[in-house]
Amino acid sequence: MLPAELVSTLNKTLTPDRFYTDPVDCYTYAYDNSRKVFPPQAVVFPLTADEVQTIVSLCNQYKIPLIPRGRGTGTSGGSLPEQGGIALSLERMLNIISVDVANRVIVTEPGVLNQTVQDTIKPHGFFWPPDPSSAMYCSIGGNIATSAGGPHAVKYGTTRDHVLGLKAVTGAGEVIKTGCYTTKGVVGYDLTRLLIGSEGTLAVITEATLKLTALPSAVAGITAHFRDLKGCVSAITQIMSLPQLPSALEFLDSGSLNLIRNRYPDMLPRSANAMLMIEVDGTESEIAKTIAVILTACKTDSLIQANQAENIAALWKARKALSPLLREIAPKKINEDVVVPVSSLPEFLNELTRLSSQYQIANVNFGHAGNGNIHVNLLINPDDTDEATRAEQCLDKIFDLAIRLNGTLSGEHGIGSEKRAFINKEIDQPTLALMKNIKLLFDPNNILNPGKIFP
Amino acid sequence: MLPAELVSTLNKTLTPDRFYTDPVDCYTYAYDNSRKVFPPQAVVFPLTADEVQTIVSLCNQYKIPLIPRGRGTGTSGGSLPEQGGIALSLERMLNIISVDVANRVIVTEPGVLNQTVQDTIKPHGFFWPPDPSSAMYCSIGGNIATSAGGPHAVKYGTTRDHVLGLKAVTGAGEVIKTGCYTTKGVVGYDLTRLLIGSEGTLAVITEATLKLTALPSAVAGITAHFRDLKGCVSAITQIMSLPQLPSALEFLDSGSLNLIRNRYPDMLPRSANAMLMIEVDGTESEIAKTIAVILTACKTDSLIQANQAENIAALWKARKALSPLLREIAPKKINEDVVVPVSSLPEFLNELTRLSSQYQIANVNFGHAGNGNIHVNLLINPDDTDEATRAEQCLDKIFDLAIRLNGTLSGEHGIGSEKRAFINKEIDQPTLALMKNIKLLFDPNNILNPGKIFP
Ligand SMILES: Cc1cc2nc3c(=O)[nH]c(=O)nc-3n(C[C@H](O)[C@H](O)[C@H](O)COP(=O)(O)OP(=O)(O)OC[C@H]3O[C@@H](n4cnc5c(N)ncnc54)[C@H](O)[C@@H]3O)c2cc1C
Ligand SMILES: Cc1cc2nc3c(=O)[nH]c(=O)nc-3n(C[C@H](O)[C@H](O)[C@H](O)COP(=O)(O)OP(=O)(O)OC[C@H]3O[C@@H](n4cnc5c(N)ncnc54)[C@H](O)[C@@H]3O)c2cc1C
Repeated sequence: MLPAELVSTLNKTLTPDRFYTDPVDCYTYAYDNSRKVFPPQAVVFPLTADEVQTIVSLCNQYKIPLIPRGRGTGTSGGSLPEQGGIALSLERMLNIISVDVANRVIVTEPGVLNQTVQDTIKPHGFFWPPDPSSAMYCSIGGNIATSAGGPHAVKYGTTRDHVLGLKAVTGAGEVIKTGCYTTKGVVGYDLTRLLIGSEGTLAVITEATLKLTALPSAVAGITAHFRDLKGCVSAITQIMSLPQLPSALEFLDSGSLNLIRNRYPDMLPRSANAMLMIEVDGTESEIAKTIAVILTACKTDSLIQANQAENIAALWKARKALSPLLREIAPKKINEDVVVPVSSLPEFLNELTRLSSQYQIANVNFGHAGNGNIHVNLLINPDDTDEATRAEQCLDKIFDLAIRLNGTLSGEHGIGSEKRAFINKEIDQPTLALMKNIKLLFDPNNILNPGKIFP
Repeated sequence: MLPAELVSTLNKTLTPDRFYTDPVDCYTYAYDNSRKVFPPQAVVFPLTADEVQTIVSLCNQYKIPLIPRGRGTGTSGGSLPEQGGIALSLERMLNIISVDVANRVIVTEPGVLNQTVQDTIKPHGFFWPPDPSSAMYCSIGGNIATSAGGPHAVKYGTTRDHVLGLKAVTGAGEVIKTGCYTTKGVVGYDLTRLLIGSEGTLAVITEATLKLTALPSAVAGITAHFRDLKGCVSAITQIMSLPQLPSALEFLDSGSLNLIRNRYPDMLPRSANAMLMIEVDGTESEIAKTIAVILTACKTDSLIQANQAENIAALWKARKALSPLLREIAPKKINEDVVVPVSSLPEFLNELTRLSSQYQIANVNFGHAGNGNIHVNLLINPDDTDEATRAEQCLDKIFDLAIRLNGTLSGEHGIGSEKRAFINKEIDQPTLALMKNIKLLFDPNNILNPGKIFP
């Protein structure tokens, strides 16, 4: 139960449509894409940074957890009130503060959707490179708090490469302004990037100055089908050793292809057991040249065919359908997003096959191969406790494998609560201790998204 | 005087050639490009991270300032032992730990020169984008500690965009490992970028994992001469609103041109009062197209001529000569590196002219116009106290102007001791307090480069 005084103060501060306490209303803020459920005791909808500050101060006063939430599309439980408390929904802070084409900058509030940013700047010839598949629905604040990236990260990087400055309210209730408005600036410590990827544990982002990129003049796609995994992975490493970077290089294993076949029976060659979806952008002549070298790089022994795609939209449709298709066959699948150096992908994918058979866990692997970022999906029925135990053991081995290959536990989903137990595998004690102390500095009462990231 | 016990322990830890206490030997570590002089009481030359840790621990034990130093090319006094203490020269940690072409990564120790990195990776078709004009002589550690950038930052960004991970020893003597080896990774807080640009105040960088970029297949240059400033600046804003980013866009004002004329009498058209040096890279066909649109963008009323340069090396030679030429006529010039949004350059440069005449201070302005990063050089004789006072007042107004125009005090040199007094103009109190607390967290005894950055 929230303290009555706090509730009454919030009642005075926010109109009823911006302060939910009814459990039914609150329930819709209880989950994210991790499929865990933790209902908040209340939901607040600030409209301004001042209101955010007031709410943070109140939560400090009463030592009540406050959990920032964009649109709840996160997959690591980051926005869930595990320890109870108040969900701080930023979804109504929707103003686009300025569109400054001459300086290639857009300034927005945190609730603005990624897609809204794209739609706003496209007519001016720009895009904002972070492109999570959830772009239609996820918020800029959420993108920043997770350093979201998508298929185009192989060429354009992730959120941390495309934010110039932030305004935020720390866990202590201080309003801070980080970074700058220009593309260069080295005044003081880089708090902007400290907040990027901090998963709502340090500060609530209330405004973001985003750096824009000019839209490429043209885009083309290639699909390449391979008889076996080995040939496909060798094509990946060959493509990534070319000077020309593809704008996307997505890998699908045989499990992924079978899922697509179930839905779109005639889409894929029968003998294909691995596939690459490749996108190339730039000027027409650049693209022609890049396509030629990529098609050559695809010519491994096991290549069935590699062709320029007629229709790029159709290409992405199949790729995007994968996550939902997986949910259909395995609603409680475990979805990981480990990363390994591209040159280690052959060993990584081989070992995955071995682990899958050793632990008898069916898995489906696909992902952003150009970054070595593979979504490993363990298809389990969690009601089968034996299978669940084996899956946990298998997962542990997968994480060990990624770390042994000089990789990382998460390329885009972050730690949240889902990978908290494993963070020690990657980050050593002194470094983790320093991070925890930074958390304490920003949020001395540990009210902001408590329990996330750290075991 | 250093405590005798500390000296004797250091004598046991390091051979005499790696531990200087003779004031004459120490004097060569007393200055950097800020032209201030603060001799250290000793200089140590560690060869390993372990030795760095030992030295940091000893300095903590005896509360002695320890000042990390790369090659002393910094222009903000960052490496100077203002409060005495020991200079920690990283210049002998020179190992290149690995060159991993398949993953586009090089791992180096901090003393390795920027140019050595470039020379090592060029045969493989790569470069490391940070390109300070001091590249031949400055260290990777120094580049990281200042987030160095150069002319190519307009297209490629600065150091903070090209580092994947670090190893470092904090001021508290803890060995930490930040970031990762892969191009994606969101596990824990981004300590890598917190250290980048921290000017040796948080931790000593002992190893860096650098992300490489493929060399462009071709490069071309353009020079454009203008009768007046106005036309030149309008060309800058027009060029920067094109979708094609030049790989460099350097601006020189009339003062700069006169300096060059003194040395190279026939190089420039007589009537030129402003000039752009533009570089374009990519494939041949891309370049041809970009040159065409840039030449068109240069066609303002005041254009004298804009031509593709025959010889790019010659182009850069003139630009690079500027800083030394300025030193010749004004050895104690004040060199600032403020940044304003590109669209504010017209107002900024106009106001500079006005301030220059108001305060009767001759100034010469040039710089990385594509980033809005202008080197403002106030040519003063510091022995003329009246002039020095006027210069200080003028500088204060220049900083106010940059901030008013939504700019920043430093695009690449950092704060060090030189701009410490002004940091409050840009960073508000709560944000600065947070930075100071981060400093305290990393370095509780304030031994690491004490007094720098913060007023
Ligand atoms: C179908 C689908 C596809 C996806 N594809 C991708 C993908 O390709 N790449 C990728 O990176 N991710 C992907 N995701 C994950 C998710 O969409 C991203 O992490 C996204 O950035 C989350 O945005 P959100 O607004 O939903 O944030 P939420 O899920 O609401 O929150 C995520 C985290 O950010 C914090 N947070 C949110 N807003 C703020 C704020 N204003 N201030 C401080 N902290 C805040 C929360 O506390 C939480 O820790 C996908 C998700 C789905 C469901
Ligand atoms: C002629 C000339 C041209 C220049 N042009 C440019 C330019 O175009 N762009 C630009 O950005 N800069 C430029 N500079 C400035 C300077 O070269 C850069 O800042 C460079 O990065 C400094 O490197 P350094 O090795 O000399 O570092 P130093 O000057 O020795 O140190 C700089 C700062 O970094 C810290 N530091 C050094 N090594 C470490 C380490 N291993 N761990 C922790 N802290 C460390 C020091 O304490 C200090 O605060 C120029 C300087 C000169 C003299």
